Amino acid sequence: MASSLLTRQLAVSLQQNLRLAAPGSRYVSKTATKTVSEFEYDTPSMKTVVPGPKSQELMRQLGEIQNVGAIHFFCNYEESRGNYLVDVDGNRMLDVYTQISSIPIGYNHPALMKVMTNPNNVSAFVNRPALGILPPENFPDKLVESLLSIAPSGMTRVQTMACGSCSNENAFKSMFILYRNKERGFSTPSEEEVSTCMINQSPGCPDLSILSFMGAFHGRTLGCLATTHSKAIHKLDIPSFDWPIAPFPKLQYPLEEFVRENAQEEARCLEEVEDLIVKWRQKGKPVAGIVIEPIQAEGGDNHASPDFFIKLRNIARKHGCAFHVDEVQTGGGATGKFWAHEHWGLDDPADIVSFSKKLLTGGYYHRDELQADKPYRIFNTWMGDPSKNLFLSEVLNVIRRENLLEEVTRSGKALMQGLYALQTQYPHILSRARGQGTFCAIDACDDTTRNIIMTKARDKGVFLGSCGERSIRFRPALVFKEYHVHQLLNILNDVLAEHK
Amino acid sequence: MASSLLTRQLAVSLQQNLRLAAPGSRYVSKTATKTVSEFEYDTPSMKTVVPGPKSQELMRQLGEIQNVGAIHFFCNYEESRGNYLVDVDGNRMLDVYTQISSIPIGYNHPALMKVMTNPNNVSAFVNRPALGILPPENFPDKLVESLLSIAPSGMTRVQTMACGSCSNENAFKSMFILYRNKERGFSTPSEEEVSTCMINQSPGCPDLSILSFMGAFHGRTLGCLATTHSKAIHKLDIPSFDWPIAPFPKLQYPLEEFVRENAQEEARCLEEVEDLIVKWRQKGKPVAGIVIEPIQAEGGDNHASPDFFIKLRNIARKHGCAFHVDEVQTGGGATGKFWAHEHWGLDDPADIVSFSKKLLTGGYYHRDELQADKPYRIFNTWMGDPSKNLFLSEVLNVIRRENLLEEVTRSGKALMQGLYALQTQYPHILSRARGQGTFCAIDACDDTTRNIIMTKARDKGVFLGSCGERSIRFRPALVFKEYHVHQLLNILNDVLAEHK
Repeated sequence: MASSLLTRQLAVSLQQNLRLAAPGSRYVSKTATKTVSEFEYDTPSMKTVVPGPKSQELMRQLGEIQNVGAIHFFCNYEESRGNYLVDVDGNRMLDVYTQISSIPIGYNHPALMKVMTNPNNVSAFVNRPALGILPPENFPDKLVESLLSIAPSGMTRVQTMACGSCSNENAFKSMFILYRNKERGFSTPSEEEVSTCMINQSPGCPDLSILSFMGAFHGRTLGCLATTHSKAIHKLDIPSFDWPIAPFPKLQYPLEEFVRENAQEEARCLEEVEDLIVKWRQKGKPVAGIVIEPIQAEGGDNHASPDFFIKLRNIARKHGCAFHVDEVQTGGGATGKFWAHEHWGLDDPADIVSFSKKLLTGGYYHRDELQADKPYRIFNTWMGDPSKNLFLSEVLNVIRRENLLEEVTRSGKALMQGLYALQTQYPHILSRARGQGTFCAIDACDDTTRNIIMTKARDKGVFLGSCGERSIRFRPALVFKEYHVHQLLNILNDVLAEHK
Repeated sequence: MASSLLTRQLAVSLQQNLRLAAPGSRYVSKTATKTVSEFEYDTPSMKTVVPGPKSQELMRQLGEIQNVGAIHFFCNYEESRGNYLVDVDGNRMLDVYTQISSIPIGYNHPALMKVMTNPNNVSAFVNRPALGILPPENFPDKLVESLLSIAPSGMTRVQTMACGSCSNENAFKSMFILYRNKERGFSTPSEEEVSTCMINQSPGCPDLSILSFMGAFHGRTLGCLATTHSKAIHKLDIPSFDWPIAPFPKLQYPLEEFVRENAQEEARCLEEVEDLIVKWRQKGKPVAGIVIEPIQAEGGDNHASPDFFIKLRNIARKHGCAFHVDEVQTGGGATGKFWAHEHWGLDDPADIVSFSKKLLTGGYYHRDELQADKPYRIFNTWMGDPSKNLFLSEVLNVIRRENLLEEVTRSGKALMQGLYALQTQYPHILSRARGQGTFCAIDACDDTTRNIIMTKARDKGVFLGSCGERSIRFRPALVFKEYHVHQLLNILNDVLAEHK
């Protein structure tokens, strides 16, 4: 029960005064005791194998209703706190996956609990409006105070949506609409366009395309899925569009040893992008927009240099394609900046920036010209959820008050140093440590080893995510301190030491 | 402020004892004072034109951030109550549109307020899980207690999603997956399928199609949009799929005068469905599923007979197409049954039933064989939102406790009688009154007249929605009583009497 959280705070703060060092010693730092939040637990605590007997029983029950093949275990969210996720069998794990990177400031943060107990907020939860036709009085203010206060440079317009896929679908639609409006000189559509669009035919439904990258993940609805190329299981058996797919740079690590090779690889990919744009125009399916993640996340935490993105942005401009940066997974602070593409060093790099996950609401920022020219072109019943904006405002307050972006940068450095050390110590198992802020990953020698490491780490109290073919991804919340980094590294070290 | 709601309840109950008849007399019934909920207002109350000055100022502010062309006015949801929507200028309107048909039991229902103040629920709001991998302990129980307790006959499986479009997109995906699994005899996909799907090509991304109907609305993401054919503004400039589109019966009214013609019309449409299925199979784009609304809502409240749907269902079975009933707008009780397709009189009519809006969460029920064979095929980060399930449980309790489906049937009869009377009295303005439960509509002679009637009604305190080319649709909440029907009809009568 949530109320037990409050009653346990005293006990926890007592525990903190008596805190013992985590098992193992290599990464335990002197600063640890200062940085952990007051309301949090201090260590993992494992009682059963995972999934434990209660999780297994619940899985059997839910299996009567849904496919449960992806479920790890069932959670006790009431008892979870900060960086620690508690399961129904009483196991408490350090959570370095955070609900697929969607929990910004940990579990049951007191600031978010307060949102719930503020009587002024009740109505926003109980009465979900159709935002596009009947917004609440405070909607403009809340947008200014939350989403617009963190808008990427040069962007003053934002459209909320319910999830990441809806955000990308509508971002694509905005790019198609702009492209066609430019083609027809912003004049009224022809009667032929109006009549043919009703039956899915051109010119009303034109053969336009979105250029995406191999390894990309932009969602699983049919429009998004046509730009997703991370795993076959997402795409198999689903009809798609014949849209161009460019190679994403495959960088070699360590970066400093492969400067020339990596520059050549990025140049090769950019050349291919231009070739595809030309080829698809010739095929009669011009590229209305280019969509890219600043770091390909689901596809395996694939990075590219700022130079690559800057040149890609220029190619988009040169060919009249809108440039859409998908920050659904990278946005929200985990890279040490609020938006990962801010690391590229451009003032005004994108036409559209989409988001969801850590932002708690989906949506996208866009330049003025990408606003649909008429109402109801970008529209649905809910257009987001104002109750999520309430939480987001509070999350942003916490990020500012607690300097969490600086904390992420600090924790990220400690994490990267630890990963470098581990791959030096276990070169036959680990390689390609990479990351920005705490948005980090490392490769195992193969997928079987990767999965064994993750399972063993879980049994010792660290919950991790995978991505790509053999990568482990680290996706902690923004309240992940150096203390937690050391806890994570200690356990990883123990797992690797045991691994024959 | 929400708290003022409570402080006003006494005043309201006093007002109810002193209630005066609504202006006009024709529809004021003796039963009125008994059926209005205790916590509600008793009449509309208009202070300004709509949108009033505050709404206009807020529209200007929001216009700097978004396209505001579809916004009617800004709302004061804290002061709204039951069937009455209050705007920021203090106008109180009888709401017969209910956020595009998505408010099940009116504004600020006390039962829903209680969900918010129950400390056991706080965690479900504060910690949104990735339901597909880490569900909360009570998730199976909540599904059984809410969604499964109202499952259409024969369906024991349900998948939650965040919104109506996501529900339909994933329902389509389930139908494609099943179709291909059947084609390959449920054997392992070939290497060619696995490799081609990554680049959007067949056989991995097969040329399958979904058959939809002219006038249909199934959402605005790219997959859904390929089955939506209600208005050009939704579809113009967006690439689509070459999928078959059948005519939906255009019934002539009054039904009892056109029995033979309407039967012929339905037979014509069914014949066309079969022709299209054959034709698209020959084109190499076989129909994996048929999607249809029990009442085409956005497309103009187009009805068909149970016989039409029963025969359509049989055609689907005969040709091996899954049969998907989209109840996003019709589901949730407004037709007098929980699911509109229950009126068809079949025990087991569908393979998939999708929902959203009044259910507060999106999702779909499906037969066992439509469950994806592997995890991650039907998946996304959030897979719904358990906090919405909490509200839904309470909504269902209220529906049962207050016998709201019976109330809807009673109010619906009164509404239809009133609409018949109005179209008899104003035959040059109104025609084609039609409906089921309170899910009703009537046509104006043209769209200009329709819009004038709606604006004038709003100025007198009734907020209505439009659909199709010249229809007014009635979409009240389930707590819309005969008393409110009479209020609505009185005002409509006044508007029509003034209309030259």
